[in-house]
Amino acid sequence: MKTDVEIAQEARLEPIESIADRTGIMPDEIEPYGRYKAKLSLEILKRLQDKPEGKLILVTAITPTPAGEGKTTVTIGLGQALNRLGAKAIIALREPSLGPCFGVKGGATGGGYSQVVPMEDINLHFTGDIHAVGAAHNLAADLLDNSVYFDNPLDIDPHRMVWPRVVDLNDRFLRHVIVGLGGKAHGLPRETGFDITVASEVMACLCLCDDLMELKARLKRIIVAFTREGRPVTAEDIKAVGSMTVLLKDAVKPNLVQTLEHTPALIHGGPFANIAHGCSSVIATRLGLKLGDYLVTEAGFGADLGAEKFFDIKCRRLGRSPDAVVIVASLRALKMHGGRPRSLCHQEDLAALDKGFANLAKHIENVKLFGIPSVVALNRFPTDTDAEIKLLEERCREMGARFALATVWADGGQGGVDLAREVMAACQETSRFSFLYDLNEPIKTKIERIATKIYGAQGVKYEPAAERTLVEIETLGYSDLPVCVAKTQYSLSDNPSLLGRPQGFEVTVREVRLSAGAGFVVPLMGNILTMPGLSRAPAAFNIDIDADGRIYGLF
Amino acid sequence: MKTDVEIAQEARLEPIESIADRTGIMPDEIEPYGRYKAKLSLEILKRLQDKPEGKLILVTAITPTPAGEGKTTVTIGLGQALNRLGAKAIIALREPSLGPCFGVKGGATGGGYSQVVPMEDINLHFTGDIHAVGAAHNLAADLLDNSVYFDNPLDIDPHRMVWPRVVDLNDRFLRHVIVGLGGKAHGLPRETGFDITVASEVMACLCLCDDLMELKARLKRIIVAFTREGRPVTAEDIKAVGSMTVLLKDAVKPNLVQTLEHTPALIHGGPFANIAHGCSSVIATRLGLKLGDYLVTEAGFGADLGAEKFFDIKCRRLGRSPDAVVIVASLRALKMHGGRPRSLCHQEDLAALDKGFANLAKHIENVKLFGIPSVVALNRFPTDTDAEIKLLEERCREMGARFALATVWADGGQGGVDLAREVMAACQETSRFSFLYDLNEPIKTKIERIATKIYGAQGVKYEPAAERTLVEIETLGYSDLPVCVAKTQYSLSDNPSLLGRPQGFEVTVREVRLSAGAGFVVPLMGNILTMPGLSRAPAAFNIDIDADGRIYGLF
Repeated sequence: MKTDVEIAQEARLEPIESIADRTGIMPDEIEPYGRYKAKLSLEILKRLQDKPEGKLILVTAITPTPAGEGKTTVTIGLGQALNRLGAKAIIALREPSLGPCFGVKGGATGGGYSQVVPMEDINLHFTGDIHAVGAAHNLAADLLDNSVYFDNPLDIDPHRMVWPRVVDLNDRFLRHVIVGLGGKAHGLPRETGFDITVASEVMACLCLCDDLMELKARLKRIIVAFTREGRPVTAEDIKAVGSMTVLLKDAVKPNLVQTLEHTPALIHGGPFANIAHGCSSVIATRLGLKLGDYLVTEAGFGADLGAEKFFDIKCRRLGRSPDAVVIVASLRALKMHGGRPRSLCHQEDLAALDKGFANLAKHIENVKLFGIPSVVALNRFPTDTDAEIKLLEERCREMGARFALATVWADGGQGGVDLAREVMAACQETSRFSFLYDLNEPIKTKIERIATKIYGAQGVKYEPAAERTLVEIETLGYSDLPVCVAKTQYSLSDNPSLLGRPQGFEVTVREVRLSAGAGFVVPLMGNILTMPGLSRAPAAFNIDIDADGRIYGLF
Repeated sequence: MKTDVEIAQEARLEPIESIADRTGIMPDEIEPYGRYKAKLSLEILKRLQDKPEGKLILVTAITPTPAGEGKTTVTIGLGQALNRLGAKAIIALREPSLGPCFGVKGGATGGGYSQVVPMEDINLHFTGDIHAVGAAHNLAADLLDNSVYFDNPLDIDPHRMVWPRVVDLNDRFLRHVIVGLGGKAHGLPRETGFDITVASEVMACLCLCDDLMELKARLKRIIVAFTREGRPVTAEDIKAVGSMTVLLKDAVKPNLVQTLEHTPALIHGGPFANIAHGCSSVIATRLGLKLGDYLVTEAGFGADLGAEKFFDIKCRRLGRSPDAVVIVASLRALKMHGGRPRSLCHQEDLAALDKGFANLAKHIENVKLFGIPSVVALNRFPTDTDAEIKLLEERCREMGARFALATVWADGGQGGVDLAREVMAACQETSRFSFLYDLNEPIKTKIERIATKIYGAQGVKYEPAAERTLVEIETLGYSDLPVCVAKTQYSLSDNPSLLGRPQGFEVTVREVRLSAGAGFVVPLMGNILTMPGLSRAPAAFNIDIDADGRIYGLF
């Protein structure tokens, strides 16, 4: 069987100018980056401001397991399938981070015959957006330390410098560091840490902004420290914002690439899905909606995290909601949720499947709660049996959910035609979207609404540190922000070992962070790492390139 | 008076495809990055392998002072001037680092009417090469720590992990850090530090390599640590090289831009000029020599550091030497060397000028020592008086050096026509180039040759740590590498306060480092920082962008 990178390398790509042209983009609205990538001008949005928007399709998933679901692959395959059916579909995805790429999984650009290409470039530096975010973030950290070093005119409390540094790698050794050692010429020692770049609030700002000037306004609001009197110190206070904005001038422009079947794909922004909202940029979504009949996009992690944030955070920015939601599931993942060991999940087990279905059922209920029609997409693997598929379809139908098999990994767009038909039909249904909470409700109410309605928790406990920060956030006047929960993606609860549909649990908010620039409040439930680590044998060991420029080990 | 960025913004640029076409590059040999930047394929070198090379012009300078000399501006102006005279000239420069850009000086792309453009892009992320170097470097650091963390199978000595991390900013607070704090899950505490990215050995490797596979071979040789038994641990040993090479696959391709007068410029690689050799890439130089009648390039810092390393390190790689060397001087800088306070250097002072000429004289002698014809270029400033210019010209003529006034800042290429004529004439002289030392001489002999012949020192002292490392380097079999001295750029000696032409001094080698991948031995004389710091009011404070995309504060 061919690997993803082999399939991608065999593809015949269309010049990016030709993809742009077919997408309705004018020649002076694109800036090519190499032959097969381009940045798009935000002027397109102005030119098309009176054009009606296409349908918005959100792809989300069951609670992820190590067995894999294939959300990105289905997103890409669905876009290709819609195009095969004559609809003009555009795909919007997040930009992959180098961390996971060299850490655990190789690439993040779909798989099989449903990939975005050039996959090597997209998985590596792409058009430099994540590097730009890192540079802007680290410049602010540098200026913050420098302000304290040179007489501390803002009276910054050295114990409340809340802006870490970032690096776009999985580097556990940088999680907790002491900087400024070596004596007076080299700073002032203090404890701090590094996050992975995609966890930077700058990335969240980029993904939620309207344009460069509105991004600048967000950067101004970012809180980097507190004074000894407890007043917030912003990026503007340390005079970092002009330079940060300059560093982000190109990153704010969305990137155009293509799928293996030449469907246009906008890949722009890649915020972490726990500490941030985990979806590609508002700018790219708006652009895709103007350019296509269908804009197919995905949200990070399972529907409890990704879809909820898409609805309650991103949809408020978009001023609209999805026309249909696709919930991706795989039989082997559902069997894991049903208690079958991972190593045996490729074998038929109707009982485990039936039990694990509870997880999918909860996500179907959740999407229904938001009032949006949904379609379950079963991402078919070769070991799936007919009996299992039949059982899952029955269970979905019993709940009134649409269901479709997708074989997009093996068959590309052709393998998603049934799914595409169901999605098109779902888009004809009436959507009665409502937010889960109003912004003017107290933050605790918002958190409790999410925990009880979406996660199925009985209640929410707060540790003292969290309580204190909530009071502070209220005092500072940020109570009307939406909530962006950071919790494990591996369970509907805050305990990663509780698979399926956990019952009778409480969630615990250990800490609360304020992302004043991005515009959300982050309750951290459980131990959330904002810097992953490498395993004993990371993907990096197997990545290589030969004299012909052929790359290995990205998959 | 217009600022550099204002002049650059008013320029009408030619599409990069058109610049490439005029330069003899085929359409399938360029990859555009936006409208005015492109990466070039290394296939050009294969296509042109039988074409004779053009003339190689090296631009260097007197010992730098805070008063400024304008080496890059003269390099660009000279290229433009050669083109005005009907010669096909190509310029090769280093890529600017973000650190100095936001730290002390804004951009590094020339000035006035002798700039490379788009200057904002070149000064910011450009085509991402420096970010790629940083990612490759930091991935190796990450894998090194990870190897120790997971049972240390290579028996690495935690006290001899010699590979720091890097960031492309002036960030003094990262010079000395402790990483791996926070307990067992987060690593193993140890002291280390960050260098600025351009000081990375990966950057030096990139700038000295022939192509991607030869770069890979260099990366394999990089020493990242030593075992407890004292054996070197390489990047290959920690399985980092495949991934590092993949990360550098595009960075190895040179970048094409243009000057304000549409002269083609190759901007590729930017190694630090102390810990590394400080010149743009061998690949770009070779390419420019094939494509142009003249390739004009510069070396970092003054001629004692930049030119010596160009000759003894880069020329060995190129397999050839420059046809002429330009030594840039400014009157105000020479007056500083003559003892006049910086704040008064804009006033006439023939005595100080005459005294300060000793610095220029030494650099003229040094270039003569290598057997290459030289031209002194006086970069004229508005406050220079005719009497001063006359005196300088006389002094140069007395030494038998060619002399030309350059007004390229104010007048662009037209202001460099006299200089260009002198350079063309110098290229007709017979060059009798010889290296300063043979590679098979002992390392101490090489160091002493440089110190006594080039710096004018009476001798070299070695601190015990340096002695120990020299023995180790010999034992490891690296004695036949060239030497890359790291010392202050502000004096011919190792004491930055000794201006002019210091006499009767010794230099002290405090430490020696082995850059086995780049292929040189670095004796550190004096306190050499490989991570600059920000000042109290860094350039970043004044950099901004407005709603029309106009950038301020890069100059």
